[in-house]
Amino acid sequence: MRDVNIGIVGLGNIGSGTLKILAENADQIALKLGFHLRVGAVCDLLIDSKQIPESLGPVFKTNDWRRLIEHPGLDIVVELVGGTTVAAEVVNAAIAAKKSVVTANKELMALSGPEIWERAIQAGTNVAMEASVAGGIPIHTVLREGISGDRVVALYGILNGTSNYILTEMEQHGSPLETVLAEAQRLGYAEANPSNDIDGFDARSKLAILSALAFGEKITPGDIFTEGIRRLSPMDFQYAHRLGHTIRLLCAARQTPEGLILSVRPALIPQTAILASVRSSYNAIWVRGTYGEDTFYYGRGAGPRPTGVAVVSDLMRVAREILSGSPTRVSPFAHQRLGQYKPIPVTLQTRSYYVRFRVRDQPGIIAALSGILAAKHIGIEAVLQLPHENKLDLPFVITLEPTTEESVRQAAAEMSQLDFLLEPPLVLPMEPPL
Amino acid sequence: MRDVNIGIVGLGNIGSGTLKILAENADQIALKLGFHLRVGAVCDLLIDSKQIPESLGPVFKTNDWRRLIEHPGLDIVVELVGGTTVAAEVVNAAIAAKKSVVTANKELMALSGPEIWERAIQAGTNVAMEASVAGGIPIHTVLREGISGDRVVALYGILNGTSNYILTEMEQHGSPLETVLAEAQRLGYAEANPSNDIDGFDARSKLAILSALAFGEKITPGDIFTEGIRRLSPMDFQYAHRLGHTIRLLCAARQTPEGLILSVRPALIPQTAILASVRSSYNAIWVRGTYGEDTFYYGRGAGPRPTGVAVVSDLMRVAREILSGSPTRVSPFAHQRLGQYKPIPVTLQTRSYYVRFRVRDQPGIIAALSGILAAKHIGIEAVLQLPHENKLDLPFVITLEPTTEESVRQAAAEMSQLDFLLEPPLVLPMEPPL
Repeated sequence: MRDVNIGIVGLGNIGSGTLKILAENADQIALKLGFHLRVGAVCDLLIDSKQIPESLGPVFKTNDWRRLIEHPGLDIVVELVGGTTVAAEVVNAAIAAKKSVVTANKELMALSGPEIWERAIQAGTNVAMEASVAGGIPIHTVLREGISGDRVVALYGILNGTSNYILTEMEQHGSPLETVLAEAQRLGYAEANPSNDIDGFDARSKLAILSALAFGEKITPGDIFTEGIRRLSPMDFQYAHRLGHTIRLLCAARQTPEGLILSVRPALIPQTAILASVRSSYNAIWVRGTYGEDTFYYGRGAGPRPTGVAVVSDLMRVAREILSGSPTRVSPFAHQRLGQYKPIPVTLQTRSYYVRFRVRDQPGIIAALSGILAAKHIGIEAVLQLPHENKLDLPFVITLEPTTEESVRQAAAEMSQLDFLLEPPLVLPMEPPL
Repeated sequence: MRDVNIGIVGLGNIGSGTLKILAENADQIALKLGFHLRVGAVCDLLIDSKQIPESLGPVFKTNDWRRLIEHPGLDIVVELVGGTTVAAEVVNAAIAAKKSVVTANKELMALSGPEIWERAIQAGTNVAMEASVAGGIPIHTVLREGISGDRVVALYGILNGTSNYILTEMEQHGSPLETVLAEAQRLGYAEANPSNDIDGFDARSKLAILSALAFGEKITPGDIFTEGIRRLSPMDFQYAHRLGHTIRLLCAARQTPEGLILSVRPALIPQTAILASVRSSYNAIWVRGTYGEDTFYYGRGAGPRPTGVAVVSDLMRVAREILSGSPTRVSPFAHQRLGQYKPIPVTLQTRSYYVRFRVRDQPGIIAALSGILAAKHIGIEAVLQLPHENKLDLPFVITLEPTTEESVRQAAAEMSQLDFLLEPPLVLPMEPPL
């Protein structure tokens, strides 16, 4: 069996992690494959400053990705540049040169996955992207192979480690978001500009990819209702616990009779749900299938080594397929074309809701709020107030019987006009037991 | 693309579940594959009494598995007979006839997996066995593809749903094992002869297969120290909880500097471990890799539909490979041949231990027990006694500082001679936080 030759573009954290595994674990990889994976070429803008493990043998080094793709004998190009500009050029050029591609790029695959796949199928090459979602959790392999015989009806995920770290710290220590975020930034868990993580955009890209794989429909980030965690405060965890729940930034894709409802938003989940046991920067995905019922996958969502495992495992599979001839390829994106899983607006969903208020105390508050709800035929499940001293800033919670998101939003908009409210009500869906 | 044709031998629960999925989910399966899976032939001893879904079209039916294998045009034979006699004949005859094989047979693969694989490689056919372990959890796909780039150092599993159901019922309701077992038998969760489940033999076969896949060494059931759950009583859960732990029938395969330690036995695991959240008849596997750190997989361990998903997903992968030409095959069993992961006796392991006694109360008990421990240089961590009335049958627990299993066994044997003991001490390892 001949060797399979790899070129890697981008030697940041993930690129270095990948090289390390390819070097250190080379013997076991070759035993599992029956042939060798060779690193033929590497590219980075700062190539001279990069350590290349010596055991890899002679490796062509360049700071120009075009020269890497032209390098003779490469079978697979690994794109670890990130972003959607140069990365797209690298991927497209590699496919045009009839190379297979392995990528960790969630943004690019969420935005242009279907087009990239079409191009690869035309060129007779392969694309693998396990590393683009949930780092060390092999969720692509699971959805595409492990449970491919099932018919997925719902997928829930905790897909952003930074926001999960922040939420579970708030939950455990009662510290406000700003304090935990500052600490996370100091420790390097959160970026200087945290918007991508805490406003849900990173999780949204990942959900777009996973729901495309799970349902076989074309799903873009714009199809996904997205709300971040900025409005949460430690008291929300106190109220949630009192209700037997916790709060997570939940990525959800659910098939309903009307269509597919997609959202990334903070949600109450029952403390008995296995998703509630996902703490700190871990990621997890819960899948419900028509036949296989529920399965759950958990692990490190990021980090050079867990993500490096995903890249190397992809390389092994793609290399095996290269040597076995060109198998039939069906795009993992948008292969259904049945329209069964067409995304529909989240406003059509029916859920119980948690509505948290901050008010200046005065008589008639509950009467005013319940009047608005009654006019919209929304039933009140419970009114909950934990002991609190400050009558000028008094929190309490109303939980609502199942109703449509549309009705709740209208009610919340009307409530926001009431002069005793210090801020608009915080509305979170309450997920049923998973 | 041509269709791929399947023959199924054995139409019991799993066979029927498999047929149902192949019939009902045929459109989605074809869209994912780009070609059709056809059921060409089915075989069962009671074939006339079996319902074959009409949408499958004409299907050759027989009660003689030899006639099924001779049936022209079949690409894949699915063995769902179970056991190690006829099933072995079916598998070997299918391979000899150059058919690929999909099987759900844990016993056969645990016992003869390496030989069956060798034969398949020689014949240029494929073997798939996702359904043999942990029903709906795609753990084979995960180990062989999803995290194939990693180097597994430890694997822990809850692999027998019946015993996990019994343990979690004992834990929740405080009922003795006999009562819960009788109820489980009444509900059809446990067999009339429960030995296979509660004595650990079923779990042992599964661990043999998973650890062979994870470590690439030849591992037979005989390499695995096995102890069932019969000696556990509700009070053990009370003591375990007091120690911040719970008790599960834990399948463990751990690489140590000396070799691989394999066991199926009741063990204390910290309540914070995600494995502690596995309740009722669910299965789960926790894997630690050198690079990817910890990942965790959870789902239904049995049932016709979850196991059917595993069979159908295997069929899809094998069918894809058949149409793409014959890829390189490396046996998932015993491919390492490095001797790095040679099984060694469990007596060499070092752990903290939980030792539970039942005694006739009298002065000098602790002195006698601690004397035996001291003579073996085993440190006592704590002595724990929950309130109890009956001085003629008094339970208490001693937890031991980390020591070798060898020493603990010798101490327990000496203690068993003491006349105030009502039964030999119950010795359970305490797993560190996972």
